[in-house]
Amino acid sequence: MRPDEHGSAQVATLSCLAPTRTILIDRLRAGDTRALARAISTVENRAPGWSDLLKALFPHTGKARIVGLTGAPGAGKSTLVDQLAKHYRKQNQTVGIIAVDPTSPYTGGAILGDRIRMQDHYSDPGIYIRSMATRGSLGGLARTTADVATVLDASGRNRVLIETVGVGQDEVDIVRLADVTVVILVPGMGDDVQTIKAGIMEIADIFVINKSDREGAERVEREIRAMQSLDARKDGWTPPVVKTVASEGKGTSELAAAIADYEAYLQKENLAFRKNVENWQERLVEMLRDAMLDEARAQMDGGTLERYAAEVAEHKRDPYSLVEEIVRGIGELK
Amino acid sequence: MRPDEHGSAQVATLSCLAPTRTILIDRLRAGDTRALARAISTVENRAPGWSDLLKALFPHTGKARIVGLTGAPGAGKSTLVDQLAKHYRKQNQTVGIIAVDPTSPYTGGAILGDRIRMQDHYSDPGIYIRSMATRGSLGGLARTTADVATVLDASGRNRVLIETVGVGQDEVDIVRLADVTVVILVPGMGDDVQTIKAGIMEIADIFVINKSDREGAERVEREIRAMQSLDARKDGWTPPVVKTVASEGKGTSELAAAIADYEAYLQKENLAFRKNVENWQERLVEMLRDAMLDEARAQMDGGTLERYAAEVAEHKRDPYSLVEEIVRGIGELK
Repeated sequence: MRPDEHGSAQVATLSCLAPTRTILIDRLRAGDTRALARAISTVENRAPGWSDLLKALFPHTGKARIVGLTGAPGAGKSTLVDQLAKHYRKQNQTVGIIAVDPTSPYTGGAILGDRIRMQDHYSDPGIYIRSMATRGSLGGLARTTADVATVLDASGRNRVLIETVGVGQDEVDIVRLADVTVVILVPGMGDDVQTIKAGIMEIADIFVINKSDREGAERVEREIRAMQSLDARKDGWTPPVVKTVASEGKGTSELAAAIADYEAYLQKENLAFRKNVENWQERLVEMLRDAMLDEARAQMDGGTLERYAAEVAEHKRDPYSLVEEIVRGIGELK
Repeated sequence: MRPDEHGSAQVATLSCLAPTRTILIDRLRAGDTRALARAISTVENRAPGWSDLLKALFPHTGKARIVGLTGAPGAGKSTLVDQLAKHYRKQNQTVGIIAVDPTSPYTGGAILGDRIRMQDHYSDPGIYIRSMATRGSLGGLARTTADVATVLDASGRNRVLIETVGVGQDEVDIVRLADVTVVILVPGMGDDVQTIKAGIMEIADIFVINKSDREGAERVEREIRAMQSLDARKDGWTPPVVKTVASEGKGTSELAAAIADYEAYLQKENLAFRKNVENWQERLVEMLRDAMLDEARAQMDGGTLERYAAEVAEHKRDPYSLVEEIVRGIGELK
């Protein structure tokens, strides 16, 4: 994808960086898992130098294939992602897994399950698993996930699997950055879950019916087909339905084949680049928003925000005019 | 809450507005449901004049009690909210209901259920129901919900009930703007739902166990009590557990009493104002973020954003430096 000259341009950039970062990046690119973990933490926690690190890593990205997998709680996502990771490992591909759990904003995510998973893969440095929970109240989870995917991409992982709970806007934003989006359904969910599904049906490039040995799998497939017959995709792709029993490893290679098919389709129809540009349009706007917000926050150090909030709470000021004034102020201060 | 002089200051402001808006606001405040619907649509869709409308309405706000109710799909939120609304109506209070469905970002929400509900209440103008779905990819649902609540508050509704599906960051953001947060649980949910619950347990001022005639209600209560015994709240409040069977109207007045208790506690402990200031701190930052985004978008009209995105997708530019350049540019352009 990326012309080779960028590689050399990047070397020139690196030489200007502090030696520790250069070493970190060298180790990261050489496959050092601890360097990878450190780089991801830096980016995830917005630790000092995170932005420069991403700048330095960016020229090394664009090679990893990113697959987003989403489904309701209980759909068996983790197990399926594990199976898929093992499948890619057998093909000698390296894998990074980002498990996003935005359902637990206060406790910092239910990490227990992933700890168990990590132990399972501990012996194989070819699979790197990272759990992420929602940070702060201002979202940005999609943004951070994208940045962590960038680090994994730069580290040379062939596959990045992003796993999210399939409800809410966060997940849609996260999944959107993937090259391929897999929506995981299970038979026998109630009506409310069908309602949830309606929201994520349209982002699916591939459907998986997991736990397909359960009663109702055929009905789920019929429902998907019925929806598809009503509404054709603009890009001409008809998302296939893959049946799996992840707990027994059944259907994993079929899923991997379906993912490869869609990737080939994107290439053949010259859609990959267009999709990439569309993704970057959204990401750039989001990044710009965050950067401007940082700027605004920097203006409101210490007690200023609290004072404003108190004035609004006392109804001494209307918040709408106040915000307009602050935005104007940022321009003036420059 | 709000000193009276603001009312008169507001009249002076209104006289400067276009006559149509003045009429709209007058009608809205006189209880005209169609004016209310129009004002909400203006705010929700960010139609021309939405910001000026909110500025003009703000001085009339601060009187409504806002209750947020959240729970997993299938917890019976809608039924419970309906029962609560009817309860308040019997006490001669007017009610506004905002039903937020962020699970369906593409289809625009599953509105069918709410249509049925609306018909049920059609004959009573004292209950106004509005369904909201996620708009656009950049969130802002919490913000829009807050603005719609502001309109309902200004219209003189005594109670605003905000109902959301209890998963994801969106819901937490939405619920945060409420004076009182009610978390609705049901017996007999699987382990994954327990995981979800962990995320919203900490925002509950009151717990409801709905469908409490089902097996397992006692176990849910024990689990809540066990969690509470581990972790006391900073404000000294122990969230009560109210058992309801919303479909039969059981427990509704107990829930209303629990809500009133907490409101009295907030008043007594002088926590209401502090909570209000904290909420406004978050809302102001969010509003600022949105305003910044508008500013950012305005900088990148038409093809500029697409061109930038293409350059990044081709790896000709790194996005992190690009965003910094744009932010600097905004300062210079001012």
